[in-house]
Amino acid sequence: MDDKIPGVTIRRLPVYLRVLRQLQTENVEIISSAKLSQRTGFSSEQIRKDFAYFGAFGTRGVGYQTDVLRKTLMKILGLDKGIGVAIIGAGNLGTALARYNIERHEEIEISAIFDNDPDKIGTKIADDVTVSSIDDLEAIVGEKDIKMGVLTVPPEAAQDVAEAMVSAGVKAFLNFTPVKLEFEDANPYVQNIDLSVEFQSLAYYTNLDG
Amino acid sequence: MDDKIPGVTIRRLPVYLRVLRQLQTENVEIISSAKLSQRTGFSSEQIRKDFAYFGAFGTRGVGYQTDVLRKTLMKILGLDKGIGVAIIGAGNLGTALARYNIERHEEIEISAIFDNDPDKIGTKIADDVTVSSIDDLEAIVGEKDIKMGVLTVPPEAAQDVAEAMVSAGVKAFLNFTPVKLEFEDANPYVQNIDLSVEFQSLAYYTNLDG
Repeated sequence: MDDKIPGVTIRRLPVYLRVLRQLQTENVEIISSAKLSQRTGFSSEQIRKDFAYFGAFGTRGVGYQTDVLRKTLMKILGLDKGIGVAIIGAGNLGTALARYNIERHEEIEISAIFDNDPDKIGTKIADDVTVSSIDDLEAIVGEKDIKMGVLTVPPEAAQDVAEAMVSAGVKAFLNFTPVKLEFEDANPYVQNIDLSVEFQSLAYYTNLDG
Repeated sequence: MDDKIPGVTIRRLPVYLRVLRQLQTENVEIISSAKLSQRTGFSSEQIRKDFAYFGAFGTRGVGYQTDVLRKTLMKILGLDKGIGVAIIGAGNLGTALARYNIERHEEIEISAIFDNDPDKIGTKIADDVTVSSIDDLEAIVGEKDIKMGVLTVPPEAAQDVAEAMVSAGVKAFLNFTPVKLEFEDANPYVQNIDLSVEFQSLAYYTNLDG
């Protein structure tokens, strides 16, 4: 796997996938970069440049085969095989994410959710998702081959939990805590989503005219 | 208000605020850009450049007064006065966000949450937050002077809801739907958070070595 694909390109791939899935339900077999541009809002140049990272599978003047393109993108993202996700923290946000309708045909599965609250442990919060004890984190992450972690714990717990998960084999985090995670001997990918930052920075725009 | 401050700078301001609040609890009255760099992870150069947009209030060789800086940033973000937020869609995510502990000392208040499900309307989902009917959206948004909208509706409802909110005075959106919102006669600020994109792009990194 080529690890030189820029992050901004990677983040556009799921958007292409969504459009390609939609096109297939419309029985569209071939799509030009111009049409993809209309559907995604990305420029044709950007699209061609993105796809060039994976080899050019378009035919000049014709376009891309939707089915081939979709399968290729799925494979690049690793969505052609199942990926297990663990959510740590069964509070409001963690629970909502466990129940959230991720586009599941993309093979991403919430495999486990953990908490340290005895009242929550054992509670079923979604189909096939019951809250496990944080004490069983490393065992379950290893056993279920979980590679992705979602952190919805209180900030003071985030670093320790993340380190335990990395030890158990987790490679990537969606971090909803405001903590800047740091790792000494590992280099997991961390995508931060800080909802307080989102709300507060949005406030700025409510004060602008227009 | 100067509207030429770049979005990337605006998004760092809440991070500075968080650190400054923490510093005040530690009774730190003066902070250098080097120390701010350690606490935020942004470079000293970046910090000085960001602050220069608002006029230089640091003293060379000494630093910034934490209290003055915090108040200035609050004012720039418009957080020195209350800002009302409406959440549209009282599903799992919308409900979680209504209960979410936004850093409320920053004067952002969830003023209303709307849904079209008769079973949900009238339900109290958090202190002072009861689900209102979507039919009352424009009236309540106007009456409560709500300027910020959070969209957690099904995709097919997003555009109509957003337009109704803009008509009622909303200036900025946090859009959790995958819909690319478009407006003809208005120019609200839209920050998109697409959780499916987050999960799917994260999948890529679970496949990399290292």
